[in-house]
Amino acid sequence: MSLRDTLDFLLYDWIDVQSLNQRPRHADHSRETYDAVLQTCERIAREKYAPFNRLVDTEEPHFDGEKVILPRATYEARQAYADSGMLSAAQDYDIGGMQLPFVVESAANTFFAKASISIGSNMLTSGNANLLMAHGSAMQQRVFAHNEFNGRFTGTMCLSEPQAGSSLSDVATRAVPDGADFEADPLGPRYRLSGNKMWISSGDHELAENIVHLVLAKVPGPDGKLVPGVKGISLFIVPKHLVDSDGQRTGERNDVALAGLNHKLGWRGTTNTLLNFGEGKYPVRGSAGAIGYRVGAVGDGLRCMFHMMNEARIAIGMAATMLGYAGYEASLEYAKARPQGRPLGAAGKDAASAQVPIIEHADVRRMLLAQKAYCEGALALNLMAARLVDEQHTGAPESAAQARLLLEVLTPIAKSWPSEWCLEANSLAIQIHGGYGYTRDFPVEQYWRDNRLNMIHEGTHGIQANDLLGRKVRMEGGAGLALLGQRIEATAAAAQESEALAPLAAQLRAAWQQVLHATEAAWQWAQRTGDARRTLANAVPYMQGFGHTVLTWVWLDLALATLRADAALHSPAAQGRMACARYFFAYELPKIGAWLGVAAAGDMTCAELDAAAF
Amino acid sequence: MSLRDTLDFLLYDWIDVQSLNQRPRHADHSRETYDAVLQTCERIAREKYAPFNRLVDTEEPHFDGEKVILPRATYEARQAYADSGMLSAAQDYDIGGMQLPFVVESAANTFFAKASISIGSNMLTSGNANLLMAHGSAMQQRVFAHNEFNGRFTGTMCLSEPQAGSSLSDVATRAVPDGADFEADPLGPRYRLSGNKMWISSGDHELAENIVHLVLAKVPGPDGKLVPGVKGISLFIVPKHLVDSDGQRTGERNDVALAGLNHKLGWRGTTNTLLNFGEGKYPVRGSAGAIGYRVGAVGDGLRCMFHMMNEARIAIGMAATMLGYAGYEASLEYAKARPQGRPLGAAGKDAASAQVPIIEHADVRRMLLAQKAYCEGALALNLMAARLVDEQHTGAPESAAQARLLLEVLTPIAKSWPSEWCLEANSLAIQIHGGYGYTRDFPVEQYWRDNRLNMIHEGTHGIQANDLLGRKVRMEGGAGLALLGQRIEATAAAAQESEALAPLAAQLRAAWQQVLHATEAAWQWAQRTGDARRTLANAVPYMQGFGHTVLTWVWLDLALATLRADAALHSPAAQGRMACARYFFAYELPKIGAWLGVAAAGDMTCAELDAAAF
Repeated sequence: MSLRDTLDFLLYDWIDVQSLNQRPRHADHSRETYDAVLQTCERIAREKYAPFNRLVDTEEPHFDGEKVILPRATYEARQAYADSGMLSAAQDYDIGGMQLPFVVESAANTFFAKASISIGSNMLTSGNANLLMAHGSAMQQRVFAHNEFNGRFTGTMCLSEPQAGSSLSDVATRAVPDGADFEADPLGPRYRLSGNKMWISSGDHELAENIVHLVLAKVPGPDGKLVPGVKGISLFIVPKHLVDSDGQRTGERNDVALAGLNHKLGWRGTTNTLLNFGEGKYPVRGSAGAIGYRVGAVGDGLRCMFHMMNEARIAIGMAATMLGYAGYEASLEYAKARPQGRPLGAAGKDAASAQVPIIEHADVRRMLLAQKAYCEGALALNLMAARLVDEQHTGAPESAAQARLLLEVLTPIAKSWPSEWCLEANSLAIQIHGGYGYTRDFPVEQYWRDNRLNMIHEGTHGIQANDLLGRKVRMEGGAGLALLGQRIEATAAAAQESEALAPLAAQLRAAWQQVLHATEAAWQWAQRTGDARRTLANAVPYMQGFGHTVLTWVWLDLALATLRADAALHSPAAQGRMACARYFFAYELPKIGAWLGVAAAGDMTCAELDAAAF
Repeated sequence: MSLRDTLDFLLYDWIDVQSLNQRPRHADHSRETYDAVLQTCERIAREKYAPFNRLVDTEEPHFDGEKVILPRATYEARQAYADSGMLSAAQDYDIGGMQLPFVVESAANTFFAKASISIGSNMLTSGNANLLMAHGSAMQQRVFAHNEFNGRFTGTMCLSEPQAGSSLSDVATRAVPDGADFEADPLGPRYRLSGNKMWISSGDHELAENIVHLVLAKVPGPDGKLVPGVKGISLFIVPKHLVDSDGQRTGERNDVALAGLNHKLGWRGTTNTLLNFGEGKYPVRGSAGAIGYRVGAVGDGLRCMFHMMNEARIAIGMAATMLGYAGYEASLEYAKARPQGRPLGAAGKDAASAQVPIIEHADVRRMLLAQKAYCEGALALNLMAARLVDEQHTGAPESAAQARLLLEVLTPIAKSWPSEWCLEANSLAIQIHGGYGYTRDFPVEQYWRDNRLNMIHEGTHGIQANDLLGRKVRMEGGAGLALLGQRIEATAAAAQESEALAPLAAQLRAAWQQVLHATEAAWQWAQRTGDARRTLANAVPYMQGFGHTVLTWVWLDLALATLRADAALHSPAAQGRMACARYFFAYELPKIGAWLGVAAAGDMTCAELDAAAF
């Protein structure tokens, strides 16, 4: 099964993307136009990305004292991507977009993620520009966002600081009004920023004319002090090179300086930087301080930023998924080609017979089917989430409201689950290769290294888990959780009608009851004690149990779609999907008890242990 | 808790190493002499290994066309190790050894494994020399083994070939008698070898005067053909430089040529090579063919090699464990030092308060306690296994026989379990570091890369699992399994007497019943169908469930020892160990059902799926 075949099944046979064409925004589209986009992206990824994935790993970005140098292949890949129009695929026609559904854009981007995750980091530019389209002024959209969509500029998101990784309330970057006329600048209220931003992907390079930094910073109060907490945070556009209101560079370098390149375990094709804003290395208009233009109201920075968070997190989930998928493909190919050992027969093994391809060994098949189940399941979940984004944007009001609720609950899973399990898939891909998998002559070790990032960035596992158990399952009186339960029940009810799937339906229902029980039991600790410490002490195991249950649901739903499309299971593809569903119920679902159990029990073994006892 | 404190508890309070001093072989030893060895090794590891662990990762071995170059630090570390006498620590006094128990030698070597696993690859030299002490002639022992023990020579094990990784029956290296007088050589029956050996660690370097390759090869039959299968395999000493019967180099280079250095994901301080034997690059005594001296009888090669297998596998388990432990130490230190975020109070979080060290967060403590439980548990298991090796060698006959049986069953776990779970510990250590853990500025990413090898070499996970379920639990009528069951029951019975531990005793007993049930159920498939395919289809999940049960037993036994030593749990160390035991029962043991379930059910979902359906 090629990725394209899998996408076709998911898009057309499972989530019925063609139904979107009935909506005014996508009325010009059809399966043909979607297919053309998928085909183009698959080709560009094959020609411009995949051949250079190892190159960008070994030729890390380096700073020559003046500029950050990347391999030529990275420039060419980015240019091909920009030329394809994918940067603005989902945008309006009138700004050069294709009005493509987000789910199709996401599907098309899987090819780049699979071919080379670290060349293919265009996500930040799209996310940056999308944010400006939602919250920027018309001028900010025209000058900055449009030039990101057309490929002239690239974008970053500057949230973290060295002393404040996950803790945004500790942001210490300051933004002070730049002169008495600061509100009169056509590009937006003008400030001078000073501070350090850490982990900034694509923070410096020469890939484009300009870099548009979106920076979280605090405007000091009248006493000159920063307000503690997240409420004081505002959002600013800080271009590397200043531009006029036509988007042309004025020739002034802004006071944004590269303080260091991070040397990473993987994902090495993307620069990752520490940036100093306003330290005076590049004084601008006579003084130190990076010039920034406020987006939205003072104190509204996090709200603007988090507006895009679901999409950014789905993109990370998709990145993790496609790294897993790349390893699956590589190890499947290897398993079919590599002779080694012999099958066990009734008389043991016959050493005089020829060796067989290792896919003939049961344990290799187990490792392949696990990878397939993890990666295709994660792909389905992320496409479902992307489809919900479309529903939220273009669905009828009630349906859009439901989509928003479901997305709130599912996003932590869509981000965290692939980060954990498609990483495990990469480890299995190494294992199938044996010693060869441990060498840099085969691609699987790089996928594994690249994938390790995904549990860390865009909100760590711990943060996703606190978001899920601490907020999402309780928000709006538990409406999101209840709605997800209805969707799961609908799948179970449909499966109940199928002889093959009815036993699985019962298992899924029982698993969901375990999730509900754990949710309630965990929250009882907060009700009894007045704080949520005990409730959240096992938020990560809770999320793991929740995630496995969601993926089991996805696989049962995929099994239903498979039977709808090919009831007799004539095609190998259909047989493979049914095997994945059975695998998930037999091998994976039984794991949830261990995770949900400690959450329900409010186990404090870890949380209460004195630091000196470790 | 320092590693030394943990070792002291395990050696003296748990497995009572001092009782070995009552045996004639170790009668000169005492806690003082053991302590002196531990202290010396800790110091050498701290001074000569740890500071260079990153260096040997970045300055990989390279071939300058003539020689393989390693960093100077590697030479110096190896010299300090050889000078310490540790290479022959367990050997007889009369050949310069210390007659140290194997368990103390193993404990002392943990310091090197933790400081730098890839500098510290002395295991192969010891293993090579030990094999010769067991199977070589007196002359072979004196010329080769003794010079390995004193540090002049190093050793390798040459099993795998490019076309035969795990499949030794496919060994194609040939050994033909070298002249009519081939049996008259004082160094042993002399052959000419030709073939390729892959994955040879320390296969070429200039660290020592000579390299002693132990090579598996087949002697052709009268028809010139090699016998298929493992029965035709013999064992040969193939020195890189030929030596005389005093062990002095004769000036003749043997026909062993470096064909390539493998460039690996980790463990980069150790050369790993493809070697060509006898291709004629270095003709010797007028013709091509590497000169080798047979060890033991023709066809007896595997038996000789496997004699050392338990010890080699315990050493890999220990390597995996100590990489995990190194990550645990690094992440514990980081968690205590890094301020980030605030604790949750009844009123939520107070952003105006100072940030707290991240060890204050429940999820960080969970990740630390998991690491501690994995790594200290694995360390205990491996020391127990090493203690069983001593028992086998110096115990009373019945006790020695029991030790042998237990070792047979436990070795696959001692090797596989740390390879899997101390790797997971390394991943948690990265996670605790957040973005910093993903950079090469912190050591944890290297530990994780280094550790990924351990599931592959010295028998992959799949091979360990087939060994466990396919042979070990059934051998001698299941006597080894039964004996392990008795030991587990003894621990449970003792725990039953303690109010705190009684509930855990019941859980352990139930878990062991699950293991026994899965064993029996899995083997019923073979009885019904006449072959073991269905039985072994889920050997790896079976081993995972078995391993977690064994580790739960270890932790209950450690809890008992903790209470014996400090019933009131006054010390933080005792509190920490009790927390690990509780953690293991609450968080880890409940996982076994998922693994054992598929083994018991003989689930064929994976094994029966057609290759085309993947």
